Amino acid sequence: MTKEALKKLIDTAAGRIPADLVIKNARVVDVFGGAVTQGDIAVSNGLIAGVGQYEGMEVIDAQGRYATPGFIDSHIHIESSYLTPEEIGRLLVPCGTTTIVADPHEIVNVTGLRGMEYMLDAAEETALDIKYMLPSCVPATSFEHAGGAIGAKEIAQALRDKRILGLGEFMDYPGVINAADFALERLLAAQEAGVPIDGHAPLVTGKSLNAYAAGKIITDHECTTVEEMHEKISAGMYILMRHGSACHDLERLLAGVTARNSARCLLCSDDRQPKTILEHGHLDYHLRICVQKGIDPVTAIQMATLNAATCYGMSDRGAIAPGRRADITLLDDLVAFKARQVFIAGRLIAEDGIYLPQVRQRDCAAMRGRFYVKGFSADKLKLNLHSDKVNTIEFMPGGVMTKKSVAAIKRDTQGDFVRDEGADIVKVAVVERHQNTGNVAVALLQGYGIRAGAVALSIAHDSHNIITAGVSDAEIAFAVETLIAQGGGIVLVKDLEVLETMPLPIGGIMSDQTGEWVDEKLASIHELAHDTLGISKAVEPVMSLCFMALPVIPDIKLTDMGLFDVRKFDFIPLEAE
Amino acid sequence: MTKEALKKLIDTAAGRIPADLVIKNARVVDVFGGAVTQGDIAVSNGLIAGVGQYEGMEVIDAQGRYATPGFIDSHIHIESSYLTPEEIGRLLVPCGTTTIVADPHEIVNVTGLRGMEYMLDAAEETALDIKYMLPSCVPATSFEHAGGAIGAKEIAQALRDKRILGLGEFMDYPGVINAADFALERLLAAQEAGVPIDGHAPLVTGKSLNAYAAGKIITDHECTTVEEMHEKISAGMYILMRHGSACHDLERLLAGVTARNSARCLLCSDDRQPKTILEHGHLDYHLRICVQKGIDPVTAIQMATLNAATCYGMSDRGAIAPGRRADITLLDDLVAFKARQVFIAGRLIAEDGIYLPQVRQRDCAAMRGRFYVKGFSADKLKLNLHSDKVNTIEFMPGGVMTKKSVAAIKRDTQGDFVRDEGADIVKVAVVERHQNTGNVAVALLQGYGIRAGAVALSIAHDSHNIITAGVSDAEIAFAVETLIAQGGGIVLVKDLEVLETMPLPIGGIMSDQTGEWVDEKLASIHELAHDTLGISKAVEPVMSLCFMALPVIPDIKLTDMGLFDVRKFDFIPLEAE
Repeated sequence: MTKEALKKLIDTAAGRIPADLVIKNARVVDVFGGAVTQGDIAVSNGLIAGVGQYEGMEVIDAQGRYATPGFIDSHIHIESSYLTPEEIGRLLVPCGTTTIVADPHEIVNVTGLRGMEYMLDAAEETALDIKYMLPSCVPATSFEHAGGAIGAKEIAQALRDKRILGLGEFMDYPGVINAADFALERLLAAQEAGVPIDGHAPLVTGKSLNAYAAGKIITDHECTTVEEMHEKISAGMYILMRHGSACHDLERLLAGVTARNSARCLLCSDDRQPKTILEHGHLDYHLRICVQKGIDPVTAIQMATLNAATCYGMSDRGAIAPGRRADITLLDDLVAFKARQVFIAGRLIAEDGIYLPQVRQRDCAAMRGRFYVKGFSADKLKLNLHSDKVNTIEFMPGGVMTKKSVAAIKRDTQGDFVRDEGADIVKVAVVERHQNTGNVAVALLQGYGIRAGAVALSIAHDSHNIITAGVSDAEIAFAVETLIAQGGGIVLVKDLEVLETMPLPIGGIMSDQTGEWVDEKLASIHELAHDTLGISKAVEPVMSLCFMALPVIPDIKLTDMGLFDVRKFDFIPLEAE
Repeated sequence: MTKEALKKLIDTAAGRIPADLVIKNARVVDVFGGAVTQGDIAVSNGLIAGVGQYEGMEVIDAQGRYATPGFIDSHIHIESSYLTPEEIGRLLVPCGTTTIVADPHEIVNVTGLRGMEYMLDAAEETALDIKYMLPSCVPATSFEHAGGAIGAKEIAQALRDKRILGLGEFMDYPGVINAADFALERLLAAQEAGVPIDGHAPLVTGKSLNAYAAGKIITDHECTTVEEMHEKISAGMYILMRHGSACHDLERLLAGVTARNSARCLLCSDDRQPKTILEHGHLDYHLRICVQKGIDPVTAIQMATLNAATCYGMSDRGAIAPGRRADITLLDDLVAFKARQVFIAGRLIAEDGIYLPQVRQRDCAAMRGRFYVKGFSADKLKLNLHSDKVNTIEFMPGGVMTKKSVAAIKRDTQGDFVRDEGADIVKVAVVERHQNTGNVAVALLQGYGIRAGAVALSIAHDSHNIITAGVSDAEIAFAVETLIAQGGGIVLVKDLEVLETMPLPIGGIMSDQTGEWVDEKLASIHELAHDTLGISKAVEPVMSLCFMALPVIPDIKLTDMGLFDVRKFDFIPLEAE
């Protein structure tokens, strides 16, 4: 800040000069004192000068509305919306959100640090303040091939960039718990940079949790039970209570929030698709749930604002108090939390659900998806099973976890899997697309429900190889070939014809279209997936499938290198013991 | 941290190797969850590996005692104890204190940044972890002469020293509120360094408070009422609830602590004399008061530990949780808070009230007090009053504030003050000692009660010129001359003979003796001051007098340049209007 700016701010606060902007007649939510007070908010150069009685050059009458600090999503992957940073900004700010802590590990897994640069640049085109965490686990594990690889040296180097807030979720929790060299080196790089480190430790408790937390990992967004949440709080972690498009933990975890631990609780969405945003909103939705579940509204707002700012060392925001950024959301009430006006750094950015600035897109031609797939053909999908008793990846509807099941299947004379129309088991394959390894891994998926055709995606967390499932090798191969030809995205085929596609030109994982376009396209894909391909209504046909390759979420997943048992943290054969 | 150390820490946490030290069978106070749990604390290289069931190379049985994080005094001036850092460490650690946030502005006012260096060096000789704030207002105001002067440039330079935690209390609050250049420059230097800035804003509320807080000043330890405290919390400040030897705000402020704001409340002593420490302890005393006043013990402990760590960005301590420093205090109960064993960085430092390491004193010869007093004589004490109606500095017993009173006095033919034995008014003088200005300012002091002789001190906050009060010019002059000859400290005279002295060789403000020696000496001084000189029992004869020259605490004070009205923030004549 310049001396002139600070002088102007203090002069404004003291009432010696009129403010740039005064939001008059507001019920100001005081997240420090935990109260609501009546007053005007004075703004100088985008910063709050004070709450009290003030005069300004520009005056906005809040008409008695509640003024809260702008909401902060403490953990989100923008790429999971399939949208660009510019477009997610357009959708989220009208919901009252002014800052998101984003981990661009999807695009970085595809393109390396080029993707980080693109996301940083694109963020400049939106009024939403996007703070990035540097992806820590690229690739997520050493059990897969990704398009990028970021080691401790790259981390140390990248963290010098002041635009980067900290080190992103350390998904390879076994690496930390087992004190693996690569994990130690990355953690130390972040510790030396003095930045926060995000965690990801599903079901990790006891001494393993101590080991994980000892690495100075300060958050977790993977709690499923109140007990797990409490244990993690005691270990010094902030709990990011999640309600995303795929994972719904918030409601369950709210039962664990107490007056004594609420300062350690934050709100996040992790993944949020356009449909969810357009229908339910963003953190306004979380806040509604909080209040419905009996959390005091000011406590809920603290979780959506101040607590996140404190956790991530963003002392410049998160409260309506002197010297903080004028990120302010005006609400009619603390029940529906519908944002009427949203200010970022003192500028009115959204009103009655409309994002006001013009949306400019950063050029993303350089991010166009490239597919390095060596010698793919239907032959690579054949299995040679030594037993009828196989390990299957069984869907757990509503989440991203899977169950390791054992099933009896039929084999042909070569030992290949023969689909039984009565048993809901099909082939699932991961086709490596970044490094020309020619890897194609095949396993058996249970509970997807598909009865015709195939689905192929170039979204497959976190390495984003091609993942595909279908009723026959031919359908699967056709879907994969179509996907490669269109440069990535989503492809549905039936009877060797293309049923529907959604191109995702940015790295094969993100669209350059609007949220509404993506939403309509996905709706069409979902409808066809359920109605024409027969995929179970209990399963989200795209989102669920794209998590089947993520080897850090239990129980069992498939990478381009094979079937992976997450609890053993090693590959296992298809044949069951 | 080295990779080997982190590996060992994680291996210990995971239970793969025995801990260096295990504190078995403790009731562990969990400041994150706000609970007490049963368990062992495992320590590796001075850091906590985890709480659970652990085995160790060394095992200490806590015998069911409570284990709390070591206490953190969030604001203290070591010099006010008259003791060296080494010696204060010896006294405080046995009380359960493991970290203090110290502002050495007394010694820096006397010697400039040389004093800061000395304090940093001396701190290395004690196990107590002394974190220093850089004095921000040296001299405290431009209305006095001090031995050091630190501007924005020096601040920017000094804050690069990683041993310095932040910028010390910004006592010149009018400078901030009025956006004075020097204040802006200093605040910006700290903001650019990204360090916390301490406040000092007695009675500052409303728009003035907004102006002060807008400078990113994040603490205040000068609250006197709950209302003031709540307003400051809402403005984003942490409240350091003080109970020192001179100022007792804690009890009053505890009424304002709520479940919603307690995270913004800390404990501090500000000033603490050896007598208070030896008789009442340190933060253990504060904690007893908290619990007596109905604060839940775990909340009280949070205020003494985690909250201070959070406020000052010391994420390496303040909790018994993986990865944090093993600063641990073992207590029999959460009522008396008597520390039985105190560990700092995993080392047992105090047991049953005894500091265990040998105390080595850093050489302090270079800090010997120097007195540059030009042409002092009794003549300089004469007044030439134009009126019988004068402004007096009236003592307010029990604090450091004064009342601006008006009194009718007698004058001689030259207009000099003539003491009336029936009226409790005497001369008080400040003699400049750092810059050879020859300044001697004289005013009238009401309510000190002195009936014989004089008192002279080279401790006079914050510039530490000589302050003296007595029944006649001759007695005052004799006391001042004796003080200069002995190189500073405290001098009591009666009938032109020395009654008692306490030399303070370090800058004229600190002793190189033990706390017990200082305590005995002060006891003798106090007894003689009350019994032989007749000073009012309602007044602390030394501590109170030495605050009479501090022009940042209302209402009225005396600097070497004249009588100062703190509310007007300007000099006023002795004659009343």
